[in-house]
Amino acid sequence: MKKEAVEKNNNSVGIVETKYFTFAEPPKELLLDGGQRLGPITLGYETYGELNRDKSNAILVCHALSGNAHAAGFHAGEEDAGWWDSMIGPGKAFDTTKYFVICSNVIGGCKGSTGPASINPKTNKPYALDFPIITVSDMVDAQKYLIDHLGIDKLLCVVGGSVGGMQVLQWVASYAPRVRCAMPIATALKHSPQQIAFDEVGRQAVMADLDWREGDYYGKSQPEKGLAVARMIGHITYMSDQSMEEKFSRRLKDKNYSFKFKTDFEVEGYLHYRGDNFVKRFDANSYLYITKAMDYFDLSGDKLIPAGKQIDTRFLVIAFQSDWLYPAYQSQEIVRRLKTRHVDATYCEIKSTYGHDAFLLEVDEETHLIKHFLDKTFRGYDVRTYGA
Amino acid sequence: MKKEAVEKNNNSVGIVETKYFTFAEPPKELLLDGGQRLGPITLGYETYGELNRDKSNAILVCHALSGNAHAAGFHAGEEDAGWWDSMIGPGKAFDTTKYFVICSNVIGGCKGSTGPASINPKTNKPYALDFPIITVSDMVDAQKYLIDHLGIDKLLCVVGGSVGGMQVLQWVASYAPRVRCAMPIATALKHSPQQIAFDEVGRQAVMADLDWREGDYYGKSQPEKGLAVARMIGHITYMSDQSMEEKFSRRLKDKNYSFKFKTDFEVEGYLHYRGDNFVKRFDANSYLYITKAMDYFDLSGDKLIPAGKQIDTRFLVIAFQSDWLYPAYQSQEIVRRLKTRHVDATYCEIKSTYGHDAFLLEVDEETHLIKHFLDKTFRGYDVRTYGA
Repeated sequence: MKKEAVEKNNNSVGIVETKYFTFAEPPKELLLDGGQRLGPITLGYETYGELNRDKSNAILVCHALSGNAHAAGFHAGEEDAGWWDSMIGPGKAFDTTKYFVICSNVIGGCKGSTGPASINPKTNKPYALDFPIITVSDMVDAQKYLIDHLGIDKLLCVVGGSVGGMQVLQWVASYAPRVRCAMPIATALKHSPQQIAFDEVGRQAVMADLDWREGDYYGKSQPEKGLAVARMIGHITYMSDQSMEEKFSRRLKDKNYSFKFKTDFEVEGYLHYRGDNFVKRFDANSYLYITKAMDYFDLSGDKLIPAGKQIDTRFLVIAFQSDWLYPAYQSQEIVRRLKTRHVDATYCEIKSTYGHDAFLLEVDEETHLIKHFLDKTFRGYDVRTYGA
Repeated sequence: MKKEAVEKNNNSVGIVETKYFTFAEPPKELLLDGGQRLGPITLGYETYGELNRDKSNAILVCHALSGNAHAAGFHAGEEDAGWWDSMIGPGKAFDTTKYFVICSNVIGGCKGSTGPASINPKTNKPYALDFPIITVSDMVDAQKYLIDHLGIDKLLCVVGGSVGGMQVLQWVASYAPRVRCAMPIATALKHSPQQIAFDEVGRQAVMADLDWREGDYYGKSQPEKGLAVARMIGHITYMSDQSMEEKFSRRLKDKNYSFKFKTDFEVEGYLHYRGDNFVKRFDANSYLYITKAMDYFDLSGDKLIPAGKQIDTRFLVIAFQSDWLYPAYQSQEIVRRLKTRHVDATYCEIKSTYGHDAFLLEVDEETHLIKHFLDKTFRGYDVRTYGA
């Protein structure tokens, strides 16, 4: 959303800055799922609103594949608001007059958190492919240290869509006692082979680019064409057949077919624009690392809640009807697992034609659901802590 | 299907050869939709069975994007049968003891018909991108001259799936009086923006490969990596979420995750195999030209049957429930157009989990439908011609 539009509504968190937290106390490094150690580790993060006295109003927002810590408000001098600005701010779903909202860039990313473009202390050069393969569990472990650093024992809520939703589920699997409520949106307990396939084709597109140089392209030309192709594939999967029809139909850029290999259709122009834009702001290796983490993610069976364990976390699980990348049946599987384990879970399937992008676009529906759910959880917390 | 398995069933058309027809009579060239002229033109084609005395038993089979004229039987010394061998042969859906089956490679292709890899008479070098953009209508015009050459006035049937189905529809739009029955399978009157988008991403993947050299790669290294990526994207769209789950689930190639950028999942290995295999047998420029023809194809509105015109062609329209690349609603649109114009049209939606690939795999269901429909059309023809 553009600055002007947001300011007119007067519900923006305003000018914000990304902050940086470097693991200072032991462990100064993380023991990763893959067996390697990663350190030093820095996380880029932003916060909106104020942490209350008893630190009971903290919400962790987890970002999706191409997202980052800048979830709301504006960076000084920039025109575009954070990626979930429609949901975070005064009076919004995540009301910053009541709640303290945190969003951190995942490790493996390229927006201030330690990732493949960071300097490898052993070589004083960018890690490139020497960066270890990380998992969603590693991402969440890193976030946990940030939450410790902020002095928060228990998060009121962990929320996110897509791979952000995987982080939500992983928070419960790893640290359920520290999560009062969890909101996995448009996500899955594990990737299906189709989801893996789309990720793998994106990775292959990047790696097919000669400029990729086995990942060792820092300071040289970037694998822009390959990453653009990967992003274009992604964008098709983020929309739906219907939303593409509504947005583009078969409209042409010019009056007639070009009878050349040029951009004939508006939908082609849109994909080119999205692809070209992405390579300016995203590191190709981060694309490889984060998609690999998504494919490895698997909390099916007893892995979400280990056998014999009970959890108190309340769940709001949200899916969208036209989302064919993370189809509703995958959210229903999450709910089924939770119900089997007697977890308090609410499931909402929002009618939408936007496809997977709906989690960023269906603001009214999401606001309605989330606001109410958060309020109830927050009040429940007050009651339990201080007595009725 | 492998030679051994086919021979055991004793229903193969046996050893076949691709024949070549070069436009000899005027026009020795085609005036294309794009305004350019193309010539000389050669078509690679195969025939199975015998043309009857009154030439009333001819069936034209139109191939899909990566298909070719070799639809049935075996080429001498080769192990794999033609791409629709399961449907064409003695006793099969297209029974070669009764019918004369023709399949020709489309112009723009790379299997014996004039395409971008052919020699441009003006330069004595391969056309490459000097090959004009062709349309499905151009493909069908070329086929028409082949049918003339074979001395056939009226085809008993024109049949094909995917872009083969577009050719079927185009035959009716261009030459309805010459088509007794038409069987468009898993196809559409026009590409949706989502279908255009998938094609465009495939083209971008090819063109992103430095070895593509603006199409001028003949005699040099081929854009193998780019074409492989395009094919991998294709294969995801040819299968369904469910068929991928059934075929691969999350099975690993090895026991554990590699924690490297290696092939971890079987589905990844399958895509690599399909991609690598394709580049050995297909010309990257043909991929660009044929997909462009698919995107330009548009017989919506009155374009299938011009206003005021009546046609006698009978239709069997077939769609598959799990085909999300050419969803059943697109076949229903064809039927709706036909019914509006009082055309005799039968619609069948086959229950299948195979996705778009179903038109190659649902042999029993298709055989049942097609055999009956063909028989009835053929007998109807006899009756009308010779009297009851």
